[in-house]
Amino acid sequence: MAALTFELQASGITGSKARAGKISTDHGEVLTPIFMPVGTVGSVKAVTQQQLKEDVKAQLILGNTYHLYLRPGTEVLEAAGGLHQFNGWDKPILTDSGGYQVFSLAANRKIKEEGVVFQSHIDGSRHLFSPESVMDIQRSIGADIIMAFDECPPYPSEYGYAKKSMELTHRWLDRCFQRLADTPDKYGYTQNLFPIVQGSTYKDLREASCDYIASRNAAGNAIGGLSVGEPEEMMYEFAELCTDRLPFEKPRYLMGVGTPWNILECIDRGIDMLDCVMPTRNGRNGMIFTTQGVVNIRNKKWATDFSPIDPGLPNEMSQYYTKAYLRHLFVAEELLGLQLASLQNLSFYLWLVGEARKQILAGNFASWKKEMVTVVKQRL
Amino acid sequence: MAALTFELQASGITGSKARAGKISTDHGEVLTPIFMPVGTVGSVKAVTQQQLKEDVKAQLILGNTYHLYLRPGTEVLEAAGGLHQFNGWDKPILTDSGGYQVFSLAANRKIKEEGVVFQSHIDGSRHLFSPESVMDIQRSIGADIIMAFDECPPYPSEYGYAKKSMELTHRWLDRCFQRLADTPDKYGYTQNLFPIVQGSTYKDLREASCDYIASRNAAGNAIGGLSVGEPEEMMYEFAELCTDRLPFEKPRYLMGVGTPWNILECIDRGIDMLDCVMPTRNGRNGMIFTTQGVVNIRNKKWATDFSPIDPGLPNEMSQYYTKAYLRHLFVAEELLGLQLASLQNLSFYLWLVGEARKQILAGNFASWKKEMVTVVKQRL
Repeated sequence: MAALTFELQASGITGSKARAGKISTDHGEVLTPIFMPVGTVGSVKAVTQQQLKEDVKAQLILGNTYHLYLRPGTEVLEAAGGLHQFNGWDKPILTDSGGYQVFSLAANRKIKEEGVVFQSHIDGSRHLFSPESVMDIQRSIGADIIMAFDECPPYPSEYGYAKKSMELTHRWLDRCFQRLADTPDKYGYTQNLFPIVQGSTYKDLREASCDYIASRNAAGNAIGGLSVGEPEEMMYEFAELCTDRLPFEKPRYLMGVGTPWNILECIDRGIDMLDCVMPTRNGRNGMIFTTQGVVNIRNKKWATDFSPIDPGLPNEMSQYYTKAYLRHLFVAEELLGLQLASLQNLSFYLWLVGEARKQILAGNFASWKKEMVTVVKQRL
Repeated sequence: MAALTFELQASGITGSKARAGKISTDHGEVLTPIFMPVGTVGSVKAVTQQQLKEDVKAQLILGNTYHLYLRPGTEVLEAAGGLHQFNGWDKPILTDSGGYQVFSLAANRKIKEEGVVFQSHIDGSRHLFSPESVMDIQRSIGADIIMAFDECPPYPSEYGYAKKSMELTHRWLDRCFQRLADTPDKYGYTQNLFPIVQGSTYKDLREASCDYIASRNAAGNAIGGLSVGEPEEMMYEFAELCTDRLPFEKPRYLMGVGTPWNILECIDRGIDMLDCVMPTRNGRNGMIFTTQGVVNIRNKKWATDFSPIDPGLPNEMSQYYTKAYLRHLFVAEELLGLQLASLQNLSFYLWLVGEARKQILAGNFASWKKEMVTVVKQRL
């Protein structure tokens, strides 16, 4: 079938580098800017695929290669006919390369030119992830967008280490492209490889990495190695450095970002795609993001607040259930609390990028963003 | 508004004491025989109220007085305008009296004529449940059907203890009726008190208790103290002893039962209403009840079984997701697994009593039940 395409629908608006566009894949279209819920092990935690579509209005979800490789494993995924068939999500899917998880979750990892040897965080079994094996695994998973195998250096990193790591990531990228070219699509639709810019927080490295990545002429490009502990302003600065240098006509994906205000600031700097576990993970801890600000739902002040969870969202769950009920569910440790919090936060994130898109198309993004950042940041 | 009424729509069919009927309450109608999902603390665990209506087709759900009294407490429930308003379930609700939980969950309980003093299982705080206080709490919760405060003796119990306990339950029942008569409905609709037959596994005590309970001419009657560890055949025997003796024209509620085959056998003996935590609790442990038998979803044999969770159920979730995916969710300890298992099991239980009703109305219940018991019991 057809490789991913990107149609830029709006850009160059007053006072902002924000863009609106449309990504087309074999599993359908994605309107940008877009936030992508994280479905780590083939499930966006505590949310059904029906709710993802109908309530959250998700357009594209993530899967994690590291997790899916360990469970259920490529054998089961291939028997199912790929992840779309396995979990029943028939819209676009993106999988990361597993690199980030190998460095953050796995034990006894050893990085070599060949790849990374590591032990599973589940049973301690030993595995090798190489650019080739990671492409093969992502072939078996069958996501529409697949990510290059990279090393994500921690913040801060020494210049020497960051440079060597970036060069390794670039060599691995070549091997990823080669392996992808050498292997056919497994399920009859096209998988699109996005390379990842690294270079830590060094301008010259980031610039060099952008140039290398751009030279590969991929269907889209990603920015990795940010949102790993550096100050917010530094993240914004390096995101912008990259968007200024990456191809204008290709989608730009900033990995692992972030809070609602992070998302608005990065969209403002020309980012088209973002993902983060924050809405689901923080939701499960009782941190509720709303159109009016941030709610710590365990707080006693919500015990008899019978207003909707979020009066500003159009989706049913946020209107139907009250803050008092949601607080009760958290205090009583009821599973439904985790479900409603996840639904609310994801719905809010998707609403936020949808509103951003509307404002970009209307040319009003810059002023709207300035107001909205204040609103979504405030603690209620 | 109006007291609960019961219209008997079918009975006296060949070879069975099963009945079909219609309960009418101020929150709508309930077609019997009916299974009632348990919403312990105001939430049927892992299921939204929307899913309860649309997928499970629940008609009436339970709340537990003990749990709701401790969390969120009557103050919050009254501020909300009762449990229906608090949790957004606008169909009928039934609350138990808290007696069972006081005996099974609370610490340091002391039974006196006045009532039961106990310590909360949550924070150790001391409380008194008396027939009067339990009626007051259930007034605050605002269920359509409320249960008398009873003592539920364990199995086995000595005759002397069972007799004294039953007599205490009867005296408490009088006090419940008195308190209810002395206090107005709090939310403008009628609450209906069901008394509870006790008497352990002694025929003369059960008969005496049935007669005492029947003499109170309540809108419906319940059978307690069964499904507490006695053999299945003994449970069936005592359920039938009670249905033979309780008023024919009133609904009969067998508390805390049970497996799918228990439910069919008890319907066969003239039971109209049942409740149990089994579909949700066992579901969360990976025991899946289906129209084809019982599935241990963690079993390796399901790893690549891409058939629907239950091809025999009409509801979307049971058709949409596969056994292989559900198994994966359990193995990977994903919250969605608990949700789908709970949805499947509750949907199956409601389907089962709905089918039973159809067969009763068609006069074929006896032969259908015999076949169905074999089917639902088998391990797949």
